[in-house]
Amino acid sequence: MEQARKRVLSGMRPTGKLHLGNLHGALDNWLSLQDEYECFFFIADWHALTTDYASPEMIRRNTWDVVLDWLSAGIDPEKSTLFIQSEVKEHAELHVLLSMITPIPWLERNPTYKEQQQQLSHKDLSTYGFLGYPVLQTADIIIYRAHGVPVGKDQLPHIELAREIVRRFHFLYRCNIFPEPQALLTEYPVIPGTDGRKMSKSYNNCIYLAEDAESVRRKVMTMITDPQRKRRTDPGDPEVCPVFDLHRIYSGEDERSEIIQGCRTASIGCVDCKKILLKNLERKHEPIRERRRKFEGKMPEVYEIMEEGIKKAREEASRTMELVRDAMGMNPFMEAEAHIRAGAR
Amino acid sequence: MEQARKRVLSGMRPTGKLHLGNLHGALDNWLSLQDEYECFFFIADWHALTTDYASPEMIRRNTWDVVLDWLSAGIDPEKSTLFIQSEVKEHAELHVLLSMITPIPWLERNPTYKEQQQQLSHKDLSTYGFLGYPVLQTADIIIYRAHGVPVGKDQLPHIELAREIVRRFHFLYRCNIFPEPQALLTEYPVIPGTDGRKMSKSYNNCIYLAEDAESVRRKVMTMITDPQRKRRTDPGDPEVCPVFDLHRIYSGEDERSEIIQGCRTASIGCVDCKKILLKNLERKHEPIRERRRKFEGKMPEVYEIMEEGIKKAREEASRTMELVRDAMGMNPFMEAEAHIRAGAR
Repeated sequence: MEQARKRVLSGMRPTGKLHLGNLHGALDNWLSLQDEYECFFFIADWHALTTDYASPEMIRRNTWDVVLDWLSAGIDPEKSTLFIQSEVKEHAELHVLLSMITPIPWLERNPTYKEQQQQLSHKDLSTYGFLGYPVLQTADIIIYRAHGVPVGKDQLPHIELAREIVRRFHFLYRCNIFPEPQALLTEYPVIPGTDGRKMSKSYNNCIYLAEDAESVRRKVMTMITDPQRKRRTDPGDPEVCPVFDLHRIYSGEDERSEIIQGCRTASIGCVDCKKILLKNLERKHEPIRERRRKFEGKMPEVYEIMEEGIKKAREEASRTMELVRDAMGMNPFMEAEAHIRAGAR
Repeated sequence: MEQARKRVLSGMRPTGKLHLGNLHGALDNWLSLQDEYECFFFIADWHALTTDYASPEMIRRNTWDVVLDWLSAGIDPEKSTLFIQSEVKEHAELHVLLSMITPIPWLERNPTYKEQQQQLSHKDLSTYGFLGYPVLQTADIIIYRAHGVPVGKDQLPHIELAREIVRRFHFLYRCNIFPEPQALLTEYPVIPGTDGRKMSKSYNNCIYLAEDAESVRRKVMTMITDPQRKRRTDPGDPEVCPVFDLHRIYSGEDERSEIIQGCRTASIGCVDCKKILLKNLERKHEPIRERRRKFEGKMPEVYEIMEEGIKKAREEASRTMELVRDAMGMNPFMEAEAHIRAGAR
């Protein structure tokens, strides 16, 4: 069972429609990964329960919104395996087994554990599953024997924990099943939302992938700019303007130079500047929207894509679990088979 | 899906061959339960990992020893469903889901948690899985929607925890899937081992179900008796004699009266007394040994019994998991089916 290419695994919680921040923060990266690696991308719906166990009714609907956004962004099911975590029960089995060898102090010293508990203090996050979230994440990664996991800096401690659990597993059961997963550290540009803060669902300042052109136009046209530039005749500073941050992503160097020049000398106004942005944003956005319309029109095909992916994921996960059970001796019928082969009948 | 009879679930860790303490402490009780209830009896091999994760190599072999002892003792696969926990992956799935709603303080205040950590201080039991042991146990019970769980007093807090988790699940997901499991409190006689202490593998003082008659005879004949009765001519006190404790189980009232009389007056010696015990013990023990020989001679049939039981357990567990996923909304393809039914194609 030689693996032709190195494997990458990444997941997203089904929190709803994706926005430009998700596109440039993750999906664009996935698009380039899928050409270089054998990729497994999954909807982390069990993970969504760690924080949303009290209101899981949105998880199911959000799942399909996220899948549609993936496909719209160009994630290609011919190249990558797309699946839904809760449909591959082997993750749960490996999670139980890893839970037995994971010391609690390893989990308690996880910096995001206390942090998130404080940030989300309106939710009761003192649950067993919330503490064990990195154990489930480790199972997600190593059940596909993934080599790499694209992450931001904040996720580094989780990958390190996964590596520690892998080493402990290999040590305890004298085997070598899993690659120690590597963090594929990616520096993402921070995408400003319409209010100038980081684009985030919780700030209600997002431009969504699924949003129509007119709605995007309205959001961009009312977007905050350099607050010091109060009148059309005031010169502005692109360095402090969130609209210019979007130009860095959507506009070419020549246009950007013109804008810097025009803004600093007040020879162009914010409206002009936003129109240029819109034109360039649409060039990226319209094909995504177009693909989404196409997929929305043939949902049964989307379900089939996911069913196919789930099947492939299950096959791969089953293969790993056989190795795991053999290494641990948790395969009662192996004894039976040996017995029967030995001619006990 | 009406349940004809009330359901009982009970499990045993595969710690090796069973002894008379297990027979009278659990199996005899199971024998009477299987006539009254629909029983599910399982080998708790994942639970064995909570304390033996560092040396799981014995779990597989022990599994079949325990199964053989069950069958030898008269557990009837026609009446009861026998299965192996690790072969029914649905337990792991439900465990993940329950972990999300179980507050850590509920687990930390579990009295056996700290107790066992202290008692087994030579093992590192500060693991995530050891803390979560009662969550897994809850999944084991409620996945069969069991009404009753035969337990000793020390297990009462675990059953209470299972009831609390059930209530929380019903409250959070506005449903009523699980009976709140009841403890079937059973007072077991304490069976003395050959040294007079409680019969226990860790004291090396056991008489095993699988032990041959000659070996049992030797153990009984060298068993400790009233330590004050040093000579044959000394009168003894049955109240402090472990051999007499065994008479309480194996000998009838008439014989016991004779023994009390004979021991107190030194008209019978310990050897005579033990011979009477052996005769009565063998009356119970020989049929068990006989059945064991029979089953050992046809192991493929034993494997088939377990495969049948596992199949039945899986069917039942799957049914419950469908209800659970529906209640929580963790069934992504239900959306798909509704969509397709609505004529999206």
